[in-house]
Amino acid sequence: MKKFAVGIDIGGTYTKLGLVDEKGNCPVQSKLPTKGHSDIDDYLRKIKTEVDKLVDEIGECELIGIGIGVPNGNYFKGTIEHAANLEWKGIVPLIDKLKPIFPDIPAILTNDANASAYGEGIFGAAKGVSEFITITLGTGLGSGIVINNKLVYGNNGFAGELGHTRAVENGRECGCGKKGCLETYCSSTGLKRTLLEMLAVKKAPSKFRDLGINDFHGEEITEEALNGDEVAKAAFEKTGYILGRSLADFVAFSEPKAIYLAGGLVSSGDLLFDPTRKSFEEHLMTIYKGKVEILPSGLMDMNAAILGAAALIWNEYQ
Amino acid sequence: MKKFAVGIDIGGTYTKLGLVDEKGNCPVQSKLPTKGHSDIDDYLRKIKTEVDKLVDEIGECELIGIGIGVPNGNYFKGTIEHAANLEWKGIVPLIDKLKPIFPDIPAILTNDANASAYGEGIFGAAKGVSEFITITLGTGLGSGIVINNKLVYGNNGFAGELGHTRAVENGRECGCGKKGCLETYCSSTGLKRTLLEMLAVKKAPSKFRDLGINDFHGEEITEEALNGDEVAKAAFEKTGYILGRSLADFVAFSEPKAIYLAGGLVSSGDLLFDPTRKSFEEHLMTIYKGKVEILPSGLMDMNAAILGAAALIWNEYQ
Repeated sequence: MKKFAVGIDIGGTYTKLGLVDEKGNCPVQSKLPTKGHSDIDDYLRKIKTEVDKLVDEIGECELIGIGIGVPNGNYFKGTIEHAANLEWKGIVPLIDKLKPIFPDIPAILTNDANASAYGEGIFGAAKGVSEFITITLGTGLGSGIVINNKLVYGNNGFAGELGHTRAVENGRECGCGKKGCLETYCSSTGLKRTLLEMLAVKKAPSKFRDLGINDFHGEEITEEALNGDEVAKAAFEKTGYILGRSLADFVAFSEPKAIYLAGGLVSSGDLLFDPTRKSFEEHLMTIYKGKVEILPSGLMDMNAAILGAAALIWNEYQ
Repeated sequence: MKKFAVGIDIGGTYTKLGLVDEKGNCPVQSKLPTKGHSDIDDYLRKIKTEVDKLVDEIGECELIGIGIGVPNGNYFKGTIEHAANLEWKGIVPLIDKLKPIFPDIPAILTNDANASAYGEGIFGAAKGVSEFITITLGTGLGSGIVINNKLVYGNNGFAGELGHTRAVENGRECGCGKKGCLETYCSSTGLKRTLLEMLAVKKAPSKFRDLGINDFHGEEITEEALNGDEVAKAAFEKTGYILGRSLADFVAFSEPKAIYLAGGLVSSGDLLFDPTRKSFEEHLMTIYKGKVEILPSGLMDMNAAILGAAALIWNEYQ
């Protein structure tokens, strides 16, 4: 009987789920709103209903486990802890609550950035690579670090917060309470803040002079930069410069074989990769120069979040 | 028969060696000059003679292996690679050359900073701790990172160069060719450079106004600071501030349980630890605050380098 892992990606707005086979195929998937379920037990029963529907769709199959990616997920405790974008406040024992609903299969959760790293390693561009880092450039900057084929969790499960390392001294205010964090520069939000800064620095004409920052959109910044907008181009240059410089420091920590970039910002392609790679090589110690690649995620146009969550299970199973 | 590992610390000037039992006792030790042996085979034969003497001194015993700590030592290849402070240039296949001389026991080498981390974990303050970082503040800044009870080597054996992460933007020139590296601020050399800077910044009287930087000595800076020299105190304050801030970023990478400080500068005690801990807590992300300790090495007044080298062997043996 064909085996599948259930991959569940719990986001602030939607929860996406799918059945994923050992090769990373996801033939059936579904989604439901995360919002509007202040009662978590009610939410988990709806998840159960969706999973049952997916199994019916597939026909005969065996579920080997449930993997969950969720903001502030604690792998060690199976809990969601103080997630700012979710309705459930405080510490939620998600895995304990899931057990009676799915009594026969194992369930594991981790934070969404770590799930991405699992996905990249099991199904994506990092397949067969034992030392790598994934950086997800979305609204914020998430990161997952793999050393010796294992995800780095740290002493309490909170390792890998590279978005909150210091990119700029006394820099931009970050949601975490610190200043100058990498994610305030390198993320879709960071790009918009940099565009704003560049509108102040530069005199070139730009479509964005007529818009407020709340009306900036990543795809449009890319499009205008490709059309020659000097200000938008400068925003990408600075984003890449700061990202490359920080990635060079991360290499001095774990010396990965490669760093994979994922998330919405990566669809900007060379606009982002060119200045990032240039700054990266410039800031690397000599012993690392030319030896570490910066590559796009292998899961860019796929259900990366569902695959990542399911990879948690396939990783244990294999 | 009592078992011992041979620990060999190869420094630029001297090579120190000793026999170390499983508890970290080192009842016999010896040293010979590293300099003046342009012929490495000749040098290794002298090592053999010294080891034989140590065994004779102990009487009946069993040697379980040879552990070597050496600058630019490559654990994977058993080589010394382009070590600036040693006479042997290029890539030296030390382990291959050692094999015919000690045919019956295993030999392993690693760089001196990694050996310190092994020593701390097996015999020192990090015994039983599975997630930690050691920082050795000597002439430079060496570091060893332990994750999940294993030393982090990286893809080619060059992980853990935390002394060459960016502490200050466009900062001091570093021997590695980059600018603003942590070791240009946080090391005994860094302290002297900071003292020089503080002599320029401050107007307070200081004994050091009559000395050139080549006549600054770490112990004297400590002594004067304890005697109330405002300039020397300010130099320690700045050193601790910069160190604590960088250590906070390292926590965002691997979330260790503790960070152990070793090396000559650590004998300055609270002069260094107080501002380091203060800055560390100030710069940590909220989720880490109060959860990661900065502690002195447990091997401060011992043959830390010999113990570290021997720990390489005991680590494999246990």
